[in-house]
Amino acid sequence: MKIGVIGYGYWGPNVVRNLTSLEDSHVLLIADVCPHAQKRAQKAYPGIKVTPNSSDVILSSEIDAVAVITPVWTHYELAKAALENGKHVFVEKPFTSNTAQGEKLINLAQQKNLKIMVDHTFLFTGAVRKISQLLDEGAIGKVYYYDSTRVNLGLFQHDINVLWDLAPHDLSIMDYLIKAEPEAIVATGQNHLNGHEDVAYLTLYYPEKIIAHVNVNWLSPVKVRTTLIGGEKRMLVWNDLEADEKVKIYDKGVKITNQAGVYELLVNYRSGDMLAPHLEQGEALRQELSYFYNCISNGQEPFNDGCAGLRVVKILEAASESLKKRGSLVYL
Amino acid sequence: MKIGVIGYGYWGPNVVRNLTSLEDSHVLLIADVCPHAQKRAQKAYPGIKVTPNSSDVILSSEIDAVAVITPVWTHYELAKAALENGKHVFVEKPFTSNTAQGEKLINLAQQKNLKIMVDHTFLFTGAVRKISQLLDEGAIGKVYYYDSTRVNLGLFQHDINVLWDLAPHDLSIMDYLIKAEPEAIVATGQNHLNGHEDVAYLTLYYPEKIIAHVNVNWLSPVKVRTTLIGGEKRMLVWNDLEADEKVKIYDKGVKITNQAGVYELLVNYRSGDMLAPHLEQGEALRQELSYFYNCISNGQEPFNDGCAGLRVVKILEAASESLKKRGSLVYL
Amino acid sequence: MKIGVIGYGYWGPNVVRNLTSLEDSHVLLIADVCPHAQKRAQKAYPGIKVTPNSSDVILSSEIDAVAVITPVWTHYELAKAALENGKHVFVEKPFTSNTAQGEKLINLAQQKNLKIMVDHTFLFTGAVRKISQLLDEGAIGKVYYYDSTRVNLGLFQHDINVLWDLAPHDLSIMDYLIKAEPEAIVATGQNHLNGHEDVAYLTLYYPEKIIAHVNVNWLSPVKVRTTLIGGEKRMLVWNDLEADEKVKIYDKGVKITNQAGVYELLVNYRSGDMLAPHLEQGEALRQELSYFYNCISNGQEPFNDGCAGLRVVKILEAASESLKKRGSLVYL
Amino acid sequence: MKIGVIGYGYWGPNVVRNLTSLEDSHVLLIADVCPHAQKRAQKAYPGIKVTPNSSDVILSSEIDAVAVITPVWTHYELAKAALENGKHVFVEKPFTSNTAQGEKLINLAQQKNLKIMVDHTFLFTGAVRKISQLLDEGAIGKVYYYDSTRVNLGLFQHDINVLWDLAPHDLSIMDYLIKAEPEAIVATGQNHLNGHEDVAYLTLYYPEKIIAHVNVNWLSPVKVRTTLIGGEKRMLVWNDLEADEKVKIYDKGVKITNQAGVYELLVNYRSGDMLAPHLEQGEALRQELSYFYNCISNGQEPFNDGCAGLRVVKILEAASESLKKRGSLVYL
Repeated sequence: MKIGVIGYGYWGPNVVRNLTSLEDSHVLLIADVCPHAQKRAQKAYPGIKVTPNSSDVILSSEIDAVAVITPVWTHYELAKAALENGKHVFVEKPFTSNTAQGEKLINLAQQKNLKIMVDHTFLFTGAVRKISQLLDEGAIGKVYYYDSTRVNLGLFQHDINVLWDLAPHDLSIMDYLIKAEPEAIVATGQNHLNGHEDVAYLTLYYPEKIIAHVNVNWLSPVKVRTTLIGGEKRMLVWNDLEADEKVKIYDKGVKITNQAGVYELLVNYRSGDMLAPHLEQGEALRQELSYFYNCISNGQEPFNDGCAGLRVVKILEAASESLKKRGSLVYL
Repeated sequence: MKIGVIGYGYWGPNVVRNLTSLEDSHVLLIADVCPHAQKRAQKAYPGIKVTPNSSDVILSSEIDAVAVITPVWTHYELAKAALENGKHVFVEKPFTSNTAQGEKLINLAQQKNLKIMVDHTFLFTGAVRKISQLLDEGAIGKVYYYDSTRVNLGLFQHDINVLWDLAPHDLSIMDYLIKAEPEAIVATGQNHLNGHEDVAYLTLYYPEKIIAHVNVNWLSPVKVRTTLIGGEKRMLVWNDLEADEKVKIYDKGVKITNQAGVYELLVNYRSGDMLAPHLEQGEALRQELSYFYNCISNGQEPFNDGCAGLRVVKILEAASESLKKRGSLVYL
Repeated sequence: MKIGVIGYGYWGPNVVRNLTSLEDSHVLLIADVCPHAQKRAQKAYPGIKVTPNSSDVILSSEIDAVAVITPVWTHYELAKAALENGKHVFVEKPFTSNTAQGEKLINLAQQKNLKIMVDHTFLFTGAVRKISQLLDEGAIGKVYYYDSTRVNLGLFQHDINVLWDLAPHDLSIMDYLIKAEPEAIVATGQNHLNGHEDVAYLTLYYPEKIIAHVNVNWLSPVKVRTTLIGGEKRMLVWNDLEADEKVKIYDKGVKITNQAGVYELLVNYRSGDMLAPHLEQGEALRQELSYFYNCISNGQEPFNDGCAGLRVVKILEAASESLKKRGSLVYL
Repeated sequence: MKIGVIGYGYWGPNVVRNLTSLEDSHVLLIADVCPHAQKRAQKAYPGIKVTPNSSDVILSSEIDAVAVITPVWTHYELAKAALENGKHVFVEKPFTSNTAQGEKLINLAQQKNLKIMVDHTFLFTGAVRKISQLLDEGAIGKVYYYDSTRVNLGLFQHDINVLWDLAPHDLSIMDYLIKAEPEAIVATGQNHLNGHEDVAYLTLYYPEKIIAHVNVNWLSPVKVRTTLIGGEKRMLVWNDLEADEKVKIYDKGVKITNQAGVYELLVNYRSGDMLAPHLEQGEALRQELSYFYNCISNGQEPFNDGCAGLRVVKILEAASESLKKRGSLVYL
């Protein structure tokens, strides 16, 4: 399997590092328009060819797959060209700038019998895998809410707002865990510095009274990566900044007895043990790229395919619409 | 100064304990309809008369002021009767069930030349006083956002939702700190158990691009009481659950230079020292009740008067309206 | 059961508060030499007689038991007088100033058929009970070490050093948990301010290679109450300052295989789940005082009796000897 | 400047990575006896020659300096050979297995006019530099104590105990900060698994009542890297595991007034702000290796020279003696 990487900015080096560490993988070419990035790539990987032209990657007859690790507004054109030239595509999140682009790429890949994988890295972490397992096993019970706080100081993206920058993580995780699509969403937020929202809040109404909320912020003095999930049987806290014990499962709950007349005793709280399960170690991106290889080798459709990427873009698009109106309810 | 207390449930005992510890204050009478509460009150304070009838307090000719520490739906009738009988009123938050009630009480107090104080206890904590001082001194600079998370397991109120239960804390603090009224609000949320929302999110748009957000939840496995305030010059985190170092001030910031052409260098982050200032100790409720006495003695209007209480109720009322529509923008 | 309390300084009020809350208990008399303490006691408990003379308590014919909540140098004389006058004794830790005193009190109580209970409050906390249960069940396996850090700013005692002030907590807990007496001890430390050590370190060698260590410090800027217990099967951390999750049990371990020649593979680490068990709630002192009553009623010897108190004093005495020589090994 | 590296186990890769990132430095040769390590080195650095023979490095005529990153029992022979062959030496801590070896190396280097630098990496961290600055400026005042806890699960060294493995960090830091040598030490500890102590405690008595204590443990379920420093004017906590705010300075103190007769008021506590100063970022090892180059270029004696390394070994040697006797006081 031979691969070319377009984009060697912030995330690209991680992709290349993991690709080169995988057995039977060969990074043949790295493309980046920025001379500084080219220099960094060349110094780190003397054995890999570096080019300023993405078309060198796209048109190469030796390359089987292309990793598109560039700003979101370039995804569509690069992925389209790669697919048209018979390459499988691994593309950075969010998948595309809008749903129309996403749909076109999915159709194109289908026609060409090629795979698209959207880089929803978090789905390959030990934490998300464990949470998924807990939900599937019924350990949490019916889900009540999903509440994520993802704030820090910077990084400002120049072409997108904080919602498009940070929320795709949560939206892809929710897509994976909740296994349902939201019915309606409300997004609020404010820009303070460069015209793009740097603070934003997103509420998603799912079927069966599941509510989700995402708090994203580029202007926070402290970094927070905390998600609370409340269920009928158990509740959990996932703090991704903890070195160990990232996921804590609380055997806690509330039961309301509709016992007429005995008003004071209606609410029963249950408070039991807390368990922080051992999580699989290993770099998520490495696992994801290994899975990308396997999917291509086996002709298997990845679960984080173009459709998964599209579902995230659909929500982002609706969120942008809601945000423009300072928070109107938008049905999906 | 002689005082009667109506309501000896969860918060009433704290009010009585602090009132009795103040010099020159005399709690003459405690009223509670619940026999169990009467028994608790009588055991704790053998020297104070306990009654099941709030009218005993309201009609007493010896009493100068009444503390109304009962569920919100009873505030209006009790406070009205107390004012009509010439008593100053200290009333639990939220002030009233709706704005109409609040306005009537304010007018009545004015006619009778009596004081109303709404129990916005947090305004008397060392943390809020310090934050207020920092804002007034300009240490934070222009405020960008106020973001509060106030979640825990229970306590379910039977007559109100989580927004009316927990958000008044934040709304009264914002009212005190931001010194402006919101222009519009959006509230989202969901009920899962008893018909009242147990998870809710509130966004408030203030003038000059200040945005505020409140995350309240009765179904969280962990207790969180954290507020982030971002400003042009500094940012702060107030974690009320910390034993010490509740307020941390970060000398951090972002500046965007509109320097055309040097795209990559536009954003400058500043990261300096963190300071956790020493905060005034002492129980907030005691300070507040002492201030109540002083206001009455000196004929001074408290800053947490009926108007302050009304501003909070006004937002809650608009939030309820927004919440009913699952999150429409409501102008105030 | 009628009781008299001698000493109403820092801890005495907690003893009285809990005694009065127990059913069928009557605090008849509080004695304290300090007029300020007398005033506080009288204000808090208008129904209880207060006296400056401990002999009023000791000689009272109505009183069944005496709680001695005074500085350690007074314990012997007060407890002796109480026992001689036919009273059961509840005495603050450490039991006595030296082992000779402790032995005399134990003998006296035995002759008079009276009970002594030493106030080792921590043994009645949910945390210590749970740890004890885990050790008894074999969940921890063979114990390797017990390591406690108990530091804070102040409180300086005027008559004793930091070892006699803070270490009795750990020594009584170890006595309860390890169920063995140390063979030898080493104590190091330093005084900086008033001639008494304000920083001290204690190592205890127990049979079967169990080692214990206690770090006590009156000059720490932060309060720490953390104990690590390492065992062959599991390890635990008890952080008494955590609101919840005070005890965390780690399914972690190390196994060394004596496989000659395969040097690098000798050490195997095991890293599994972490469990924070739900702990019994309730105030420890209340449980202890209730147990005191039961022991007297049933003629049962408490496990925290004079002998338990004496074992702690024996170690403190040896530690003082070691400390004087700046840390020589002292056999017990 | 051309350098050869002997030892490519756990720490060696970090040394090579930093050396190659420095300008004007050339790693010519990497030696390691282990084939697996050779393979790792060759894969990571295709441009650097790798050899199983340390003598290839030592005898190379092209090489100016040798980095000895091997187990401690090999340091003396390798460093001696390197010095005899005219190479400057950068050697992993602890410097040597005993003081005699250390003295011989120092003398040899002096005769040959070569530099020895002992890898006391922590001295180049932003945290230690800041603490050093605070002490030098007098911000802490007279030091009372230095108390370090450095515990985790593993890594077991096969040739040395936990004291020789972990305590050199603290001993080198104390040497740098306290600027005095201890007068006497006491070491206690216990082995549980392989004959080497896996739990150990070290008390150091310095002049002027400064006391230091080091708690090292290979069998802790949690990783702790916390140092408390108490001084007359301020106190600080250095938690090296914090992402930010590693060093917290507390404006806290205690003053004892020898005012006869007013016993209760003798102790005054002062509690003020806490400051977490911004620390210099950057990898400590890179700074240290850059300093190594500068020292050689300029003929400057590094502060972490052989003498600094020897002072640490001297304490370790005395600690071993004390430990053998289960904790006797050993004068230095």
